[in-house]
Amino acid sequence: MAQFQIEQFLNEQKQAVEAALSRYIARLRGPETLKKAMAYSLEAGGKRIRPLLLLSTVQALGQNPGIGLPVACAIEMIHTYSLIHDDLPSMDNDDLRRGKPTNHKVFGEAMAILAGDGLLTYAFQLIAEINDERVPPAIRVQLITQLAKAAGPEGMVAGQVADMEGEGKTLALAELEYIHRHKTGKMLQYSVHAGALLGGANAAQMQELDAFAAHLGLAFQIRDDILDIEGTEEKIGKRVGSDRENNKATYPGLLSLAGAKEKLAFHIDAAKHHLQQAGIDGAVLAYICELVAVRDH
Amino acid sequence: MAQFQIEQFLNEQKQAVEAALSRYIARLRGPETLKKAMAYSLEAGGKRIRPLLLLSTVQALGQNPGIGLPVACAIEMIHTYSLIHDDLPSMDNDDLRRGKPTNHKVFGEAMAILAGDGLLTYAFQLIAEINDERVPPAIRVQLITQLAKAAGPEGMVAGQVADMEGEGKTLALAELEYIHRHKTGKMLQYSVHAGALLGGANAAQMQELDAFAAHLGLAFQIRDDILDIEGTEEKIGKRVGSDRENNKATYPGLLSLAGAKEKLAFHIDAAKHHLQQAGIDGAVLAYICELVAVRDH
Repeated sequence: MAQFQIEQFLNEQKQAVEAALSRYIARLRGPETLKKAMAYSLEAGGKRIRPLLLLSTVQALGQNPGIGLPVACAIEMIHTYSLIHDDLPSMDNDDLRRGKPTNHKVFGEAMAILAGDGLLTYAFQLIAEINDERVPPAIRVQLITQLAKAAGPEGMVAGQVADMEGEGKTLALAELEYIHRHKTGKMLQYSVHAGALLGGANAAQMQELDAFAAHLGLAFQIRDDILDIEGTEEKIGKRVGSDRENNKATYPGLLSLAGAKEKLAFHIDAAKHHLQQAGIDGAVLAYICELVAVRDH
Repeated sequence: MAQFQIEQFLNEQKQAVEAALSRYIARLRGPETLKKAMAYSLEAGGKRIRPLLLLSTVQALGQNPGIGLPVACAIEMIHTYSLIHDDLPSMDNDDLRRGKPTNHKVFGEAMAILAGDGLLTYAFQLIAEINDERVPPAIRVQLITQLAKAAGPEGMVAGQVADMEGEGKTLALAELEYIHRHKTGKMLQYSVHAGALLGGANAAQMQELDAFAAHLGLAFQIRDDILDIEGTEEKIGKRVGSDRENNKATYPGLLSLAGAKEKLAFHIDAAKHHLQQAGIDGAVLAYICELVAVRDH
């Protein structure tokens, strides 16, 4: 695939995800304010990296990415709920997210908590009620089990707790990696894993794709830490330098900026290596690797 | 079944649920504080009415209630998460729940939010990963779809939003019933419905059991409102009279105390009628009806 075709594919998939997210909220019979609060954060944009990873993995395995759309939306809903709750005054107390006022700034704290709860719950419904013979119940229960593990008290929620408990402390690299493997890594890995399940990957391909996703996830977080130093507020849509102000452990802080960049390059290379080993049509996934390595927001 | 046998059955099932809840938390590999915060509210007691409704429905259909244990625990986890989030300072701002300090009073607001998120997510995992040939994937996805509908933005979360938006307003009876049908009714109904699914109810039995649960749910809420006037703080474990202080619409407020009691009796009778129509071994479920009608906490 030529680069312009890859970009076109990603653009189309991103639009498909955003249209589906809007449809899923619109069809709900519930209080209008709740629907607005849920839609507000879902529509606040972002790169949609998780849904795109899932859909690109399905495509790389030669299947129609459309079969992954409900799960892609479920992942984005869970990611969005986690941002809403993380931004709350009792958590990170952030006023801005992706350049817009955070959910509780617009709808109030109580509604923001409930909008998050609603998105989290609805995500599981979307997968359970998939009405597509290519995704039978036996696959759906696997998708749900693994999503709950990635997002729940052994996954993202554990990472958030570890992050909170680590604030103001001097962390070793292993502790920092625990936080990131759980807080962001598990959901990124799940995105690829779910795509592999839906695309019908065999055991060997699954193993390589899981390893690909693990390295990509760490690369993603290292780049995030680097951006907090090098990025501009305008581009990343939130305050720059907030990690240092909040006394948060970061890769550049532990390894120096040059050391962090080296580690970033290592993980990107390792991710690409495993992708190649999977023996699939990995052009789009390799392109996403590049995006993560050089992203400026 | 004689009354002492019914009470013994309910006691045994309650203990089975509480033991299983503890096991489910103990097996988690995650931060200890998170596990403690989740366990704290799960172990805070309560009547376990939802799990008992589920297990008693399975029993009433002649099946082994043990097959319902994971779903019963999932329901209790979702009920518990909703209490933790409802009690938060930005929501009802309650310091006491079941006679004990609320979760955020013990673990702080951020951890309470995350403990709730963890319980909600874990609940879906418990159902998805049921390892029992009597509960095949096709039943599990139905159980998950319906649980998400009962708990999510068309169910309990919608009820919570409507409740919040109704505060300080004069509500019509229809609005009050909307709140209760969603905030507490849907999860009570789900408990019976899930038990009926697991117990293999036929379509006619399902319809009667759904109607039974709808009336029971309204009765439950009316009794709750009456208790807020007539109960003692010691027995119900939270402040009495808080509804009036918070200017909340209640059944006694709209119908007078005598009118509310009449409505309670009507719904209890209707619930029993539908139970009888189901043509099952409904002795335990009828006993639960009585408990709801006369409960003092």
